[in-house]
Parts: sequence; structure tokens; C-alpha cells
Amino acid sequence: MFLRNCWYVFGWSRDVVAGGKPVGRVIIGQPIAVWRSDADGRLHAAEDRCPHRHAPLSAGQVEGEAIRCLYHGMKFGTDGRCLHVPLLETAPDISIRIYPVVEKDSWIWIWTGDADKADESLIPDAFGLDNPDEPMQANSIEYDANYQLIHDNLCDLSHVDFVHESTLRLASGAWWAQSKPRITTRDRAIRFERWFVNADLPGGQSGEKVDTWIAYDFVVPGIFIMRGARYPEGTAARCGMQEPVGIEPHTRNIEQQAVTPIDEARTAYHFATGLIGNTPELTQKLAQRMGVVIAAFAEDRTMIEAQQRIWNRTDPSVEKYFLPQDKGPHLMRKLMERLVREEREAASQGA
Amino acid sequence: MFLRNCWYVFGWSRDVVAGGKPVGRVIIGQPIAVWRSDADGRLHAAEDRCPHRHAPLSAGQVEGEAIRCLYHGMKFGTDGRCLHVPLLETAPDISIRIYPVVEKDSWIWIWTGDADKADESLIPDAFGLDNPDEPMQANSIEYDANYQLIHDNLCDLSHVDFVHESTLRLASGAWWAQSKPRITTRDRAIRFERWFVNADLPGGQSGEKVDTWIAYDFVVPGIFIMRGARYPEGTAARCGMQEPVGIEPHTRNIEQQAVTPIDEARTAYHFATGLIGNTPELTQKLAQRMGVVIAAFAEDRTMIEAQQRIWNRTDPSVEKYFLPQDKGPHLMRKLMERLVREEREAASQGA
Amino acid sequence: MFLRNCWYVFGWSRDVVAGGKPVGRVIIGQPIAVWRSDADGRLHAAEDRCPHRHAPLSAGQVEGEAIRCLYHGMKFGTDGRCLHVPLLETAPDISIRIYPVVEKDSWIWIWTGDADKADESLIPDAFGLDNPDEPMQANSIEYDANYQLIHDNLCDLSHVDFVHESTLRLASGAWWAQSKPRITTRDRAIRFERWFVNADLPGGQSGEKVDTWIAYDFVVPGIFIMRGARYPEGTAARCGMQEPVGIEPHTRNIEQQAVTPIDEARTAYHFATGLIGNTPELTQKLAQRMGVVIAAFAEDRTMIEAQQRIWNRTDPSVEKYFLPQDKGPHLMRKLMERLVREEREAASQGA
Repeated sequence: MFLRNCWYVFGWSRDVVAGGKPVGRVIIGQPIAVWRSDADGRLHAAEDRCPHRHAPLSAGQVEGEAIRCLYHGMKFGTDGRCLHVPLLETAPDISIRIYPVVEKDSWIWIWTGDADKADESLIPDAFGLDNPDEPMQANSIEYDANYQLIHDNLCDLSHVDFVHESTLRLASGAWWAQSKPRITTRDRAIRFERWFVNADLPGGQSGEKVDTWIAYDFVVPGIFIMRGARYPEGTAARCGMQEPVGIEPHTRNIEQQAVTPIDEARTAYHFATGLIGNTPELTQKLAQRMGVVIAAFAEDRTMIEAQQRIWNRTDPSVEKYFLPQDKGPHLMRKLMERLVREEREAASQGA
Repeated sequence: MFLRNCWYVFGWSRDVVAGGKPVGRVIIGQPIAVWRSDADGRLHAAEDRCPHRHAPLSAGQVEGEAIRCLYHGMKFGTDGRCLHVPLLETAPDISIRIYPVVEKDSWIWIWTGDADKADESLIPDAFGLDNPDEPMQANSIEYDANYQLIHDNLCDLSHVDFVHESTLRLASGAWWAQSKPRITTRDRAIRFERWFVNADLPGGQSGEKVDTWIAYDFVVPGIFIMRGARYPEGTAARCGMQEPVGIEPHTRNIEQQAVTPIDEARTAYHFATGLIGNTPELTQKLAQRMGVVIAAFAEDRTMIEAQQRIWNRTDPSVEKYFLPQDKGPHLMRKLMERLVREEREAASQGA
Repeated sequence: MFLRNCWYVFGWSRDVVAGGKPVGRVIIGQPIAVWRSDADGRLHAAEDRCPHRHAPLSAGQVEGEAIRCLYHGMKFGTDGRCLHVPLLETAPDISIRIYPVVEKDSWIWIWTGDADKADESLIPDAFGLDNPDEPMQANSIEYDANYQLIHDNLCDLSHVDFVHESTLRLASGAWWAQSKPRITTRDRAIRFERWFVNADLPGGQSGEKVDTWIAYDFVVPGIFIMRGARYPEGTAARCGMQEPVGIEPHTRNIEQQAVTPIDEARTAYHFATGLIGNTPELTQKLAQRMGVVIAAFAEDRTMIEAQQRIWNRTDPSVEKYFLPQDKGPHLMRKLMERLVREEREAASQGA
């Protein structure tokens, strides 16, 4: 079950190099090639399938802004039209499918559905890797698991206490399973907000305490945008447990993560973590933090791939027990189901 | 095709450590977690599937005698009842399936069928690793093959001459394909008995001869219990080719092996070999013997996995040619088929 | 879709050693064991499946000219008849299937269809590795791809310019996608002939030019036999662009390659390259050439396996665009389809 009419993160901007080779990846089962024009570095995306013999265009080469298949030499322009075929005087009237592609906040976004429905306003704001005042470090991994298990994971952070006991939990100083976030539904996203009151200050003097504000959106089809901040003890109460506005925190961290289904059994995960500020001390702290984040996501992968293997051996009729913590995952699954259903209904009415 | 109402060997007692982590394995397609109480080391077995999100409990931790899922923190007692859920004041009225588990002769036995039918008298006697007068060495391997191919192998030892020509055949001094064992059927087992008359004494002076008595039971659902003994030449005749009773042999060896299906395509194999006696010389001989046994079972695995690949490429309608040597494998397959059929009939009548 | 009544290349003559072990391989899904008589080295081929328990005979041993299964000891003669079974006084009246096998031009050819239809005249002439005046170097690789993708590749060498730009294209001095070969259909083969006029002489003085004649047959079920020769510039015109007869070339190269389907998803490829002549200089040149050929076929494999992965993700209803270059692949696919259809019709009429 995949949503088609939405923006998926193909990867990081840096993954596709101007003057370099095209990059081929699979999103929701669709092979897609992405490349940059040699001259201006503009991004282009097309089906990764030469119409001639269905060889991958990503095994080809960029020529100016066009892409040439390196199996038998067919060349295609950025509008998808064939520009040249060896031995033919005029290029034939055929085209490859072009995907809407957008570069924003250091991510390459691909619209996998009907091109005429592509709506850039649906791309959520993230942070990107290029803001010197908001330095981030980025990485990508792949899961042998269905993307919805990763959605579940990101929509219920109570697992931090258990899966990430010695990594993220320790680094956060908070106990995530002991309080519930406030969850609100938006049009194509779910917002999670919470205070951790009187949390330990990691690395601080013994007994030092802080109030920590954590807010994140999980946006269709799998974009995780988080802001965190540490405040003096008592701030949460002074804000009436609401979002702190106009109060300067001790420290601020930002996270951007994207869940991109490769197919039903495999999923890509593109993540970055950042610390707001621009000092040598922060640069060093960020490197440490990235180490913790990489270790933590390896913990997630181990758990989720093991969970997937149990699912594979379990009759789908076996029910799962719903906990209060499941509100977030449940809302996200319902949201995805509704959007997929609406998309399919619209498609069948159009047909 | 699996028998459910029976005791499968989960593994060796030593595989699950008190104060250590739970161990997750799959038996006949069922994921099962086994752990020990911290205090008394008592064994517990449960479905390896948290009812919450179907994560494996074996990725969790032991707390006292309970087990806690380390995905979102649900905790279960040894009766399977939920003891604690983060954020809930009272634990919900749900349970995980508990498997009957027994520790006997250094093996962990699991009853995979209906718990109320679990009958400990069906567990055959083996030797175990803890008897100082019967020292054994143990190991486990896995096959990429269906368990019935391994049953076949163990119920027709004529293959020793061919598969194990330079290992077990040489070590036994006997020619296994040149005489037939006496085969008798029991309720849930098949017994194999034979004399090797006038066999070479391995490692003995050139020309030294012995009579060797070999008897083993192959017990449902795949337990191999063997006793062997070497006697002075002429003993077999003096016993009228019957079981030697009250005669002291030169040497005695014991073997215990268990075939445990993981699923239809993969099988675990837990084996130990021993030499009866308690001398430094025997200890050294046992280490040598274990080397031979490990080499021999690698030979079996190579052959059986190759056989499985041929079966995978062969239409099931292609017949197999029955030889006298197949009596044992045939009886065992018939026995398993009858028990599975009876079990299914009983289940459908109960339903 | 496989043709059965034809000769497939099992491998190189040297792959099966007299006095050595049998060799088991799979051709069009059929496991086949090949061995040589100890005394005279004559080849024998049989189904690689003991009729007893379907173990692979190739895991067995050669005894004289017979083959013995090393699982339980059944022995079979070169006519397939059982010669011996342990414990039986007389061998039972059963047989294994014997495949017609021929050794010719350093290849082992197996007829996979009805033995009584085996017609050695259908084996095309190649060169072999044993002619001192036509030295060749040989190798084998396997593809994770359907054999027809490799047929396509070999029947349209316009891909040389793109896939092999820095290997075979450079070594040939020609531009393969800029001219069309003359293609003619034969009974069970397709012939490709072409002149490259005014091509660069690789490794020659800058600006040196040659005319190069290339002719090859692609013979059912996947045999590629090529002859190439370089002539003084102007030779092509003097021959009226026809085959050069009675003119001595500067250099001549020969190629023999065989595409052997293992199953629908995997294919073996046996190839050799040679330079005609018998001088130390040629021996050195041949070693260099083999390096180029091995590199080039690794390029093919990378492309074709990537193409196969795209096909696996593509609905078969998605059409492919036909180019003039596809005439060869198209004729070969049509030829294979017709032969398979005829074979099936004959089989159903016979039934």
C-alpha cells in the first residue's frame, strides 16, 4: 500500500553531483533516475527505464542537461523527449516519464504520482545542511522492513526508554515512556508536543535539572521534523505547559528525517541531526551527537527488522493490543489509509 | 507438515543463561522465546511476539522471573499475564502464550502443541552433559533442508560407508552398508540394533578385531539416542546375535542428537557424543572423537543440502526407488504421517 | 521458455577431469552430472539425481567408467543401468537418464531433449583451445539474468560503443553503432557481417587506418562464433563490401562463446578469445586481449543484471521501443520462439 500523489525524499542533495553520474534508486517500487545539468546543476528526474530495452538510464551518462542510455545510446532531454538514437537521422517521437523534482532543505523531493497534481506547497519545511547557524550532520541507511513499521516507531517515542536506553534516552536526560505527548492532527501531518519537566542535564553537574520542550511533525508520506530545546527548570510551569514562546533556551537541537519506501519489504531512511548555534564547541558537540544518533538508529533497525521477521511468521489475523502510546502510530496509519483510499477512488472515477 | 503435540528440543541447557538475555528461536514456524528466572534459573518459554506490536520478546530482558519487551516496555509474568505497561496504572487483562518447557538431560524441551496435552512421559531418556562418568561434548548446527531429509539420514546409517568413509566409518572400524540392522517399531519410536562382527579395531594393532554392538532409538519428533559398545571377537556369536547383557565391553560410546524443524526449509540439529568412563585418556579420546563427529556432520550437511537442491528442481511426481535400506526411513515417515493425521483429525473433531 | 531438443554447452572440456570427480551443473532447470571414464577419458552425462533418494550423483565418484552415488552407494553404468546396490545380490532393473554428450572444439555439448532426436550435425563448428596455430584463452562466468537478455546483447553489437567504450571499442578501433551489419537468417542461426572502413589501428602509429571485417553466427540455442580480420585500408572497397576471400589480412581474431541457461533467472556464459598465428609476440598480445575481454564481459554482466532488475520491477505489458539495431535480437527471439513452439506442438501430437 503506497501513496502515489505525494513528495518522497529521493536522498540528500549531495547524493547527486553536477558533472557526475546519474543516480538510480527505487521509490514505492518505481525505478527513478536523478541527475544534474552539467552547466547549472539543476535537478532532473525520470523513470529509470530506457524505452528501448528497459535498461536503467542511471547506468548511463549526463550530456549537458540530457541523459544518455549507455546500453545502446538513446538520448533524452529534460522534458523526457528522445533527442537522438544511433543510426536514426531524426529522433523518434517517444518520451520517457519525467518526475517532478524539487530541491529544498538539502533534500531531493520526487513526486511519484500524476505530474499535473504535483503541488510544491505540500513539501514541508525542514532545516537543510547549508545554514551556518544551524549546522547539521546527515546520513542514510536502509531497512529490510516495511515503511509502516518505521512510521510506527517515529510516531511513538516511548520506545526511546527501551530501545535507546544507553543512547538517546541518556543523551536526552528524559524518560519518554513516563509521560504522554500532546498529539494533534493536521491536514497531512500529525504534531507531537511535550515538556519533560525536571529532566537530568546530561553531562551537567550531578543533580542539575532542566525543562525540555520537544515538538515534531510527522508529515505525509513519512517526513519527521523535530525541534527540541532545554530551558531552566521551572520554565514548563511558567508557560503553563504550553509551547515556550519568546524564551531563550540553553540549547536547541533540530532533526530532519525521511522514510522513503523502496518497496513493500525495504525502506530507505535519510536523517540529519543539528545543534543550533555556530561555535567551535558546538561543532564538537554535534559530532558527538551524530555518533549517538547513528548508534540509536542502528538500534531501531535491529529492533524493527526483528519485528518484521516476526510479522512475516505471523498470521495477519492475529490481533495487536492497542495501548495509549499507539495513538500517534494509529492516527498516522489512519491518515495514510484515508489518503490512499481517496487517491484510489479518484483514480477509479477518472478511469 | 509438522507434528505439533510433541516435545521439540529448543537447544542445550547452556544456551540459555540465568542472569542473561532471553533466547529467541523458531520451531515449526513458531517464534519462541526462552529465558531463566534470575533467582533460581528456572526455565520459561513463551511465544516470541509481544501482543502490542509483535516485536520479539527475545529482544527484551529478564526482570526477576518476568520478561519485558524492550520495544515499548510491556512486561509479562511466567504465567503469560501482563504485569505492567508504561503509562497504565493497572496492567491490562491480556496474556502471551506460554509453552510447556522441561529441562532434562541437558536439553531444553518445548511442547509446541496444546498445552493441556503436554505429557512429560513422552520425553525420551538421553544422557546429558553433566554426568562425570559419561562425559559428552555438544554442538549445534543448522541445515538449509527440510527436517525429513535428516530423519531419513539418521534412520539409514548405511550412508556411513559413503558419506563418512574417512570419518565415522574409519572411526567405527565397521562396514555399515554390508549388513542390515534389526528394526522394530515402538509406539512413538523406531529401534535399530545390529552387531558388526569381526570389525577392525581402529587405532589398534594391525589385524586386531572386535565385535561391535550398536543400538539406537529414533524417537518422535526427531530424537536420536544411541549406545555403542566394543566386545572381544566372538561375543556376538556367544550372544546369539542378540543384545549383549551382563558382558563388560572394552569401550562404550553414547550419542544424543535432536532434529528440530525451524520451518519447512530449515532445520536445527543439536548433537553430543560421549565415551563412557572417567579417565584422562578418555577425555583426550573424546576430544578427538568430537572432531570426527563435527567433520562427519559437516559431510551430512553438504550431502543433504545438495539433495534438497535437487528435490527443489524435481517434480514431486518423480518416484523414488525403494531399497531394503529404506525400511527405517520409511517406517519413520509413516509414523510421522500417522501422528500428524491423527492430530489433525482430533483437531477437526474438536472444532 | 526453453528449447529442449538442442545442444547446450555444459562447459569447457577441461572442466571435467579424467580420474577426477564428476561435475554437476544445471541446464534449463535440469540437474546434469558429467564425468569421464578413468581409462580412456570418454565423457558421460546423466541426470544428476540418484533414483533412490534423489541425491546428486555429482557428489559421488567415478569407478572405472561407472558412477557411484556416495549417499547410499548405488552404482550406474554409462548406459544408465544400475550395476550395484549394497545388500542386493542382483542389481535392480532400474536406470538413470543418460544424456547424449559430445566433446567438440573444447566444449562439452549436452542434448537436453529426447535422446533419439539428438543430431550431432546441429553442433556448430567452433575453434577449440587445442590448435597451436589458433591459440585461445577461455573462461566462464554466470549471470543473474535470463538468457534471452544475453542473446539480445550478442545479437546487437551496437552496444560496444557504449558499454565497452574503454575496452572492446577501443581495442577494435571501430565505431559499432554507426553502421549496420548485414543480417541473414539461416535454418537455426543468424549471420552478422560487416566492414568497418577506415578504422583506427589500435596501438598503431597515430593516424594509421585499417579496414576490418567482422562476421559471426549466432546459433541456436546460444552459440556465438566470430571471425575478425584487419586488412589494408581500401580492402573493403576492393571487395565491393563483400566478404574478403583469398586476401591475407594483417591480423585475425576468433571468438567462441556459449550462453547456457541454468534456469529462467540465471545463466552460464562460456567464452574464449583467440588470435590466429603462433609467435611469442602473439602469445603476449593474446594475454592482453583476454584481459580486455574479461573486463568487457564484466561490463556486460553489470549492465544486463541491472537491466534484469528493471525488468523485474516492470509490468510485462509495458512495451519496448523497436530500433533498427533490434533486427538481430528480434530475429533471434522469433527463431527461438518458433523452435520452442514447434517442439511443443510435436510433443503434444506425440502424446
